[in-house]
Amino acid sequence: MPPRTSDPFTVEPWCVRQPRPRLDAMAEIEAAFALSNGCLGIRGTFDEGDPADMPGTYLAGLHELRSIVYTETGCGEPEATQTLVHTIDGTHVRIAVDGQPLDLRAGEVPHHERVLDLRSGTLRRSLRWRSPAGREVDVHSERLVSFVHRGVAAVRYTVRAVHEPISIALTSSLVANGVQPHLPSRPSAGDLLEHPLEPQEHHVDGGRIALLHRTHRSGLCVAAAADHRLESPAELEVHVDADEDWARLTATAELAPGEEITLVKLLGYAWSADRSITAVRDEVSATLTTARHTGWNGLLDAQRAYLDEFWADADVEIEGDDELQQAIRFALWHLLQATARSEGRAIAGKGLSGAGYQGHAFWDTETFVLQVLTALRPAITRQALGWRHSTLDKARKRALELDMRGAAFPWRTIAGEECSGYWPAGSAALHVNADIADAVIRYVGATGDVEFARTTGLDLLVETARLWAAFGLHGRDGRFHLHGVTGPDEYSALCDDNVYTNLMAQQNLLCAAQWSREYPADAERLGVDADECDGWEAAGAAMAVPYDEELGVHPQAAGFTDLPRWDFASTPPDHYPLQAHFPYLQLYRKQVVKQADLVLAMHLRGDAFTAEQKARNVAYYEGVTVRDSSLSASCQAVLAAEVGHLDLAYDYLAESALADLRDAEHDSADGLHLAALAGSWIALVAGFGGMRQDGAELRFRPALPSRFTRLTFRVRHRGARLRVGIGDGEASYALEEGDALTIRHEDEEVALTGRDAVVRPLVPRPRPPAPEQPEHRGPLRRDAPPERTTGAR
Amino acid sequence: MPPRTSDPFTVEPWCVRQPRPRLDAMAEIEAAFALSNGCLGIRGTFDEGDPADMPGTYLAGLHELRSIVYTETGCGEPEATQTLVHTIDGTHVRIAVDGQPLDLRAGEVPHHERVLDLRSGTLRRSLRWRSPAGREVDVHSERLVSFVHRGVAAVRYTVRAVHEPISIALTSSLVANGVQPHLPSRPSAGDLLEHPLEPQEHHVDGGRIALLHRTHRSGLCVAAAADHRLESPAELEVHVDADEDWARLTATAELAPGEEITLVKLLGYAWSADRSITAVRDEVSATLTTARHTGWNGLLDAQRAYLDEFWADADVEIEGDDELQQAIRFALWHLLQATARSEGRAIAGKGLSGAGYQGHAFWDTETFVLQVLTALRPAITRQALGWRHSTLDKARKRALELDMRGAAFPWRTIAGEECSGYWPAGSAALHVNADIADAVIRYVGATGDVEFARTTGLDLLVETARLWAAFGLHGRDGRFHLHGVTGPDEYSALCDDNVYTNLMAQQNLLCAAQWSREYPADAERLGVDADECDGWEAAGAAMAVPYDEELGVHPQAAGFTDLPRWDFASTPPDHYPLQAHFPYLQLYRKQVVKQADLVLAMHLRGDAFTAEQKARNVAYYEGVTVRDSSLSASCQAVLAAEVGHLDLAYDYLAESALADLRDAEHDSADGLHLAALAGSWIALVAGFGGMRQDGAELRFRPALPSRFTRLTFRVRHRGARLRVGIGDGEASYALEEGDALTIRHEDEEVALTGRDAVVRPLVPRPRPPAPEQPEHRGPLRRDAPPERTTGAR
Repeated sequence: MPPRTSDPFTVEPWCVRQPRPRLDAMAEIEAAFALSNGCLGIRGTFDEGDPADMPGTYLAGLHELRSIVYTETGCGEPEATQTLVHTIDGTHVRIAVDGQPLDLRAGEVPHHERVLDLRSGTLRRSLRWRSPAGREVDVHSERLVSFVHRGVAAVRYTVRAVHEPISIALTSSLVANGVQPHLPSRPSAGDLLEHPLEPQEHHVDGGRIALLHRTHRSGLCVAAAADHRLESPAELEVHVDADEDWARLTATAELAPGEEITLVKLLGYAWSADRSITAVRDEVSATLTTARHTGWNGLLDAQRAYLDEFWADADVEIEGDDELQQAIRFALWHLLQATARSEGRAIAGKGLSGAGYQGHAFWDTETFVLQVLTALRPAITRQALGWRHSTLDKARKRALELDMRGAAFPWRTIAGEECSGYWPAGSAALHVNADIADAVIRYVGATGDVEFARTTGLDLLVETARLWAAFGLHGRDGRFHLHGVTGPDEYSALCDDNVYTNLMAQQNLLCAAQWSREYPADAERLGVDADECDGWEAAGAAMAVPYDEELGVHPQAAGFTDLPRWDFASTPPDHYPLQAHFPYLQLYRKQVVKQADLVLAMHLRGDAFTAEQKARNVAYYEGVTVRDSSLSASCQAVLAAEVGHLDLAYDYLAESALADLRDAEHDSADGLHLAALAGSWIALVAGFGGMRQDGAELRFRPALPSRFTRLTFRVRHRGARLRVGIGDGEASYALEEGDALTIRHEDEEVALTGRDAVVRPLVPRPRPPAPEQPEHRGPLRRDAPPERTTGAR
Repeated sequence: MPPRTSDPFTVEPWCVRQPRPRLDAMAEIEAAFALSNGCLGIRGTFDEGDPADMPGTYLAGLHELRSIVYTETGCGEPEATQTLVHTIDGTHVRIAVDGQPLDLRAGEVPHHERVLDLRSGTLRRSLRWRSPAGREVDVHSERLVSFVHRGVAAVRYTVRAVHEPISIALTSSLVANGVQPHLPSRPSAGDLLEHPLEPQEHHVDGGRIALLHRTHRSGLCVAAAADHRLESPAELEVHVDADEDWARLTATAELAPGEEITLVKLLGYAWSADRSITAVRDEVSATLTTARHTGWNGLLDAQRAYLDEFWADADVEIEGDDELQQAIRFALWHLLQATARSEGRAIAGKGLSGAGYQGHAFWDTETFVLQVLTALRPAITRQALGWRHSTLDKARKRALELDMRGAAFPWRTIAGEECSGYWPAGSAALHVNADIADAVIRYVGATGDVEFARTTGLDLLVETARLWAAFGLHGRDGRFHLHGVTGPDEYSALCDDNVYTNLMAQQNLLCAAQWSREYPADAERLGVDADECDGWEAAGAAMAVPYDEELGVHPQAAGFTDLPRWDFASTPPDHYPLQAHFPYLQLYRKQVVKQADLVLAMHLRGDAFTAEQKARNVAYYEGVTVRDSSLSASCQAVLAAEVGHLDLAYDYLAESALADLRDAEHDSADGLHLAALAGSWIALVAGFGGMRQDGAELRFRPALPSRFTRLTFRVRHRGARLRVGIGDGEASYALEEGDALTIRHEDEEVALTGRDAVVRPLVPRPRPPAPEQPEHRGPLRRDAPPERTTGAR
């Protein structure tokens, strides 16, 4: 990647503006400007297609299978992986000016601006282009992916002759199996499929064009269609044609100076794994007819109305830091984009903003993304957990393959099958099962959704509890042990009694027993009897939690604090992320933490630690954590805030929130870091808001870092919407929706009724001495030049 | 594989006879009848080529490169593997009888016998074949791979008309890139290369034919040539021709009843990685001219003379068990075949008897094969360690790749580079380095070869000691720890303080320091100073050896005895080997041992254990060891004998010795189990002979199992050849070569001089209660029907 001279975006409260063409930062801008609704995602490429880094139009769940080849294979290792497919691309609107194709690399570009508008939900672009022959045009375009119509995208494109009469030829197309540029900036290039789609049908009909394709091995049928409306003062000559892998409309006209052609291009998508090609053909046509009926202005209006409602629920206001104000809205925007209409499909680690990690979903979704959505859009959490539930039979089968019982959910997947080709960091990371249970428990606690708890929720809890019961064992010491698992930290693997895993499994077991006793009829449906519940409770009660008495800290897993410490002093700053420079053989056997593990346990299972333990553990793990994963900073922010390192928490918040807007790790190219974006909300709300949810109880211990003057956020809980404001030494709590809610401020119970705010003074935090981070791995401060150079999730 | 109705071989002291055609057992017979001299190896296929299971002509070191594709790769993982190449095949002598090709699947075979003669060193075959048209021929052939001329093989082939005059057409060929049958009996079929050789040249000249080829990626040049001598009472018409991938001689004659044609086919091979194609072309021609000069009878005589000398040195006589008498000679024969002329090339785990494990060499060579050769043919050990030494720079480079110091030798390789694609069972098995050091120490102790010790030996010891010093760390407990390594047992991985590894590393460190102080000038050449020696000694002295005080046994690695025990009772007998039915995720985290690990440590580092510990450890590990590896039984035999389970030791000996002759695991098809064959000698000599070598000291604690009446074996030590006889309650020690040698019988020092035997009474052993093995995994008793069904190394 060419070096970047400065950040590509300006700081504004509700927009992300790129005031200049930045071909040197094309890749990460494509990701940042990706439009999506969780069902359909389109990378922020230029209308004219070229140049591009990783053009991508994705449909959630639309994947191809690829064989995994092992040189030395073990039993139970998956034979194939699933890879997100770049489907039929409908973005292209190309023009030629007096026969010269508009291309930012040719001629001159006196003006070029793109604006992502977080309230209109559109990506606007305006540019003036002077062709090599000296002819000038002004182009304006606006693109959206509809939140309201999940298969619909649209673009409105205007080109105007500036000074002289010109001949304009405009081409709008659908392209299947488009060539990927394979730029060296994309380390994940090998993950992209070369020619993923088999042509089935192509149609042209007036201004409407359509392509139907099918994936080779996974056999999924996909259709895309486009409808065109053209306005022009001059007479237009229009031609449509199509072949197997493309369909297009070409229009040409002579424009006098000041005259313009406007094209509204409506796009419809549909795909299916099981319905017939006829059904998909009809669906896409109906989708497009709906879009046409709604029209461009109708789509714009619906988009804004949808977002008005979202921001009313979700907005976070930060006073004292405009950059983070923008960043948190950018984060919430992309969280919404990745999830809004995911409806029964996996939510990938990069949403639909890129094909990185092959489009796979990880535990990030339950632990980071759903943590936020449960507080803002619980209906999306319900659907996302419904997707996990829809894969339960696959997880049951996987458990049997792994000689376990219950359900073993995959480490990475699109359709539910395990896709990890490296089991020590994949299938062995069993905590994903407890993370799913945790998301179930949190959702039910926040909503009181008993119907869900008794069905989807209980199914997930029971089958994951069965996994732990079968996997663990009461040892000679009477404790219940989980041997040979991998925790969240990817610089350790195959450990005994990983504290995070054990505590999360403990919650899983105990809650499965509790719910089974609460809903006996539903438990009976699952074959749960009293003996099984007793077993879960006994295992939960006896769960081993290793503790190093000598150091007074919790080892991340048994023996961790006895391992040699990584030699940070001798590790050059450009040798991070360590995984790119050192073998796992070295990383696994040393004290070096890629990402919060024990620290995350202290957030999600804070009840299992004393305040003193938390303080000591934070100090200890700050010293060995390198944050080579973008999942880490927000977890560290939450605990840093809890134990009193408020300004350190602020630095970690900033690192997490700006992960993609500033692309600090230079790895946003193949997709955004959804967990880091979610983490920035978590750092604000759980960190500075001190919010913890325990079942139906919501508790706050607010405190602000020195850079903030005020922080306001909203959470939905038990049908109410609570607004929390922190500033001027006070916290205020007010209901924006709902009649009554009882919360805790610090240790005091606070009953909220009506719309009146209740105000409580902030409690001063202890100010322990600042902990030290490994050399070169302190938080990335925004006033310091970036030191870190390469990428990791 | 079709079920076998009975063993294919008869029991004879000096032959392995296959009295009937056994197309149902073709694969393992090809391996058992493979002829080799350690440089050139030829599978025991039929002269006529078809049918065959895995035709193979191998040249030690001749390999091709193949890329390893990872879906999730880590730093330091090898990008390519090396695969042994089936090179130009010169075995084929085909005949047509009145136009009908001789094929055992057509017509009738009234008689068919093959005999591997362990004293002549040839494979003889005699058969009568009745063609579908009713014409009968007698065929006799004899094949050898010369121990004296390392690039030479030869076959003498006679065909006779029996009852009626017949027309014989005989074809003798060289074939490159021959098609592999890909029978389902070969699980390793995927390891075979389809078309490994690029044609370079082909020549015909009178009765001589030649092919020159080159491997694609590794760029190695190989040549094969054949010379023919024909004798016939009838006039012969001869034709020679060649193309890129074949060269052949065809001869035809009309034979009257009783008349015969005799063909002597001499084969020459040469290959090189760095010499020019001209050099290789000339070398093979010179080789063939030498063979022709020697002639068939000369080759036969030299072969017998070579073997007479070998058997004088190496023979083991067993009274009371004819089957094991044959088996141990078969084992010694194949050990000689795999190593005799290996000269600077790796000795593969399967020798040159098949392409299994891609022809890779493992630690098996140093620990099993060289243990035997050091006592029988120390010059071969010297050469084999010279091969390791020749790869020292690659091992140094590998150590740097793994962020270590010193040398890190590969887990599996042909040419010295690491070829394992699964690092937890490959690169993490660092014990291979200590195993090489152990072989060095044993060789020098047995020979007193100071010149080797100061050069090759010291280099290897110092660079491996550096690895341990850099890899390990003095922990908070003051002990020196090796974290995150994999020991010999492949059902555990990435453990801390594997006892075997730690004890072998301890010996490595201490001996490197000792030798460095003994040979200061040589140490200085390697940059070793007093500080470094002090460090090695301090690490060795403080080496952690975990011990479970509660159970009174050594855990195989830290925490092993705390792990849940494998549920043997619920594991069906057909679910072995476990690795084919259960994921490593389950195997690694439970107490289940594939192959001797702690038990092997008690053999090779017996000084580190008390007799009581050995007895308790044997009893404990018998209960969790499943012997899914053929490396295990012999180790268990040695320790079982030491602690008094003599009949159990006998059963394990038999299992090891018959691994290939009876093919108990049905996995000899793609090559013999060289370590098991070596292990059968070790079980006899270290087990029943109780032989232990400590530096220059040789000690015996002999004891016989009830099935043996007498055991006699020979070992070379310090230039002497000692014959040890055990039987009738006595042990006798006599020098067959050399003037004087002092040994120990039990704890008594015994000075031997001249040729007189010294006789000492056997000391009765304790008879502890018999230990129990896991269900279905007791030793395979020869009077019980085989229970185990599938394969592993």
